[in-house]
Amino acid sequence: MSVMSCRCCGIDVHAHVVPEHFPACLGRRMPALWPSTAPAHECHRHVMIADRVYRTVSDKCWSPSRRLADLPAMGLSHQVLSPMPELLSYWFEPADGQQLSRYLNEQIAAMVAEGNGALIGLGTVPLQDTDLAIAELEFVVKTLGFPGVEIGSNVNGLPIGHERFEPFFAACEALGAAVFVHALKPAGMERLVGPAPLQQVLAYPGEVGLAAASVITSNLLVRHPRLRIAFSHGGGTLGLLLPRLQQGWQVFPALKEQLQASPVEQARRLYFDTLVFDTPTLRHLVDTFGADRLMLGTDHPFNFHDRTPVARVEAAGFDAAVVRQLLDGNARRFLALDAATT
Amino acid sequence: MSVMSCRCCGIDVHAHVVPEHFPACLGRRMPALWPSTAPAHECHRHVMIADRVYRTVSDKCWSPSRRLADLPAMGLSHQVLSPMPELLSYWFEPADGQQLSRYLNEQIAAMVAEGNGALIGLGTVPLQDTDLAIAELEFVVKTLGFPGVEIGSNVNGLPIGHERFEPFFAACEALGAAVFVHALKPAGMERLVGPAPLQQVLAYPGEVGLAAASVITSNLLVRHPRLRIAFSHGGGTLGLLLPRLQQGWQVFPALKEQLQASPVEQARRLYFDTLVFDTPTLRHLVDTFGADRLMLGTDHPFNFHDRTPVARVEAAGFDAAVVRQLLDGNARRFLALDAATT
Repeated sequence: MSVMSCRCCGIDVHAHVVPEHFPACLGRRMPALWPSTAPAHECHRHVMIADRVYRTVSDKCWSPSRRLADLPAMGLSHQVLSPMPELLSYWFEPADGQQLSRYLNEQIAAMVAEGNGALIGLGTVPLQDTDLAIAELEFVVKTLGFPGVEIGSNVNGLPIGHERFEPFFAACEALGAAVFVHALKPAGMERLVGPAPLQQVLAYPGEVGLAAASVITSNLLVRHPRLRIAFSHGGGTLGLLLPRLQQGWQVFPALKEQLQASPVEQARRLYFDTLVFDTPTLRHLVDTFGADRLMLGTDHPFNFHDRTPVARVEAAGFDAAVVRQLLDGNARRFLALDAATT
Repeated sequence: MSVMSCRCCGIDVHAHVVPEHFPACLGRRMPALWPSTAPAHECHRHVMIADRVYRTVSDKCWSPSRRLADLPAMGLSHQVLSPMPELLSYWFEPADGQQLSRYLNEQIAAMVAEGNGALIGLGTVPLQDTDLAIAELEFVVKTLGFPGVEIGSNVNGLPIGHERFEPFFAACEALGAAVFVHALKPAGMERLVGPAPLQQVLAYPGEVGLAAASVITSNLLVRHPRLRIAFSHGGGTLGLLLPRLQQGWQVFPALKEQLQASPVEQARRLYFDTLVFDTPTLRHLVDTFGADRLMLGTDHPFNFHDRTPVARVEAAGFDAAVVRQLLDGNARRFLALDAATT
């Protein structure tokens, strides 16, 4: 068990960036939802969207040194940075979305450059326009040297399994770009009873679960077997949808015809983060998806983040080899880290 | 372990009824969605809604003898009958909904009367009108002698945790009526990629999960501690929402203020069926919700039903006492069966 006692070897694939400032929009008119920031209390800024405070965030969102200071206590050696999902900007005109994507990608690249090798970047692309998205993907991978991109679970309401995104995923596979899928503007909001944080708390997991299911029911990994795609929040609700999808695939002829490989087989080609805040749930996801599929995820540095990602894995009773897979082995494979320097 | 080897002692709380025929609507004009049936192949009828075949069902849906013949092979001693959810009729004018509810309740009562004691009824009430719903609830419980009712997970889009349903649940508690919540017209349909059965397969679990979460976030069981309420399909996605809700409740002041008892504590006051088609998932739900919370559920006699509900529980490796709880003890408590004859 001595292999397990590495306190700072984890790779966190789910952590977010908010820039300290945003540029003005270069388009002919300023979109109503274009983000900006405004001063808040010490070390914090308000993210302003449509003249309202969307979220108040700390300087850990933009300062590499402030962020790096948190990693040892969390047991992390590396952290993968991706934009706060609300910044993905699919709802802008394509050129405006491209401008904001490029700005975010360059901000993340600057943070990576200051990260002493501990920070890794995932870019963003304007998926409302497939051609622009592929062009930005190439910039992110070839020019910035990022291992991949973050995308939303839907693009203006279209789930990522929709055929419209086929050329984008083909490009990701061809470039060897990892894709990290994060919940965004979730379905099911009309079913919540309670205050605003329930969007993140209850609607995000269902949204991610249905996004992952759409990848399965559209046979994305059958068509693109080398695509590496990961889902936030432990795949959301997918773990509980999967047995029912497997049974439905065996019972309904229309599903048997639609899916070109069994749902369970397809699910076990996806990656997931460990961000479920619960050890028995983590064990259940490892049983469901496989020990080679899960990677640390924290949502750092937002308030609602997992402060003990490594300790949680170490407490789950996995054998040492599985612990190493979850702490960094699977993330290295997802991000192609060992290949990236060749 | 000898206690476990009872092959026909299970109580199935999740089984559906479709009448062989429907009456004409007594309202001034026929609602477009008013159901009817039409002949299909041998022993089957089409359920027609809006001039289209909604589903083709067998005579097991209305014939007690045909239904009873299936129970021994499934290991069941009793089955609880509730309407096919699409018949719940919340979308009609209240008087029309009341008419159809009354017809369904009387059809179910007739089946129960022919069931040799093996069939138990759950009624339906027109929840689009709280006063009519409470009046029909009283008829169902006091006149028909049913232990409770089935309700949909939402009523014309309003989740059941909405304050509008407070008087109805107060009446259920006062009458000692069990409430079985079934997925209905689910949220998230816009995220599905694939054929029509995905509504049942993928959207139902998310819908049930959010309905159960709305009961928790609205403190229903805190206000009505004697209310017995169960959720179909193993509670849908609730098992994976719950750890995140528990964490969110600890992190977000607005949630801490909203919820009057912890989410986990509230979830463990709810009941769930076992309809998850997977032994590891069943074990995880027992760990999550408690061995005193789950009851057999099959969706019999529809095509997509669990043919081996008892065998699945017996294969899960629970100790004998837990097996008995899942097979019939919890259902007896949920339905107040042992009190019902006094």
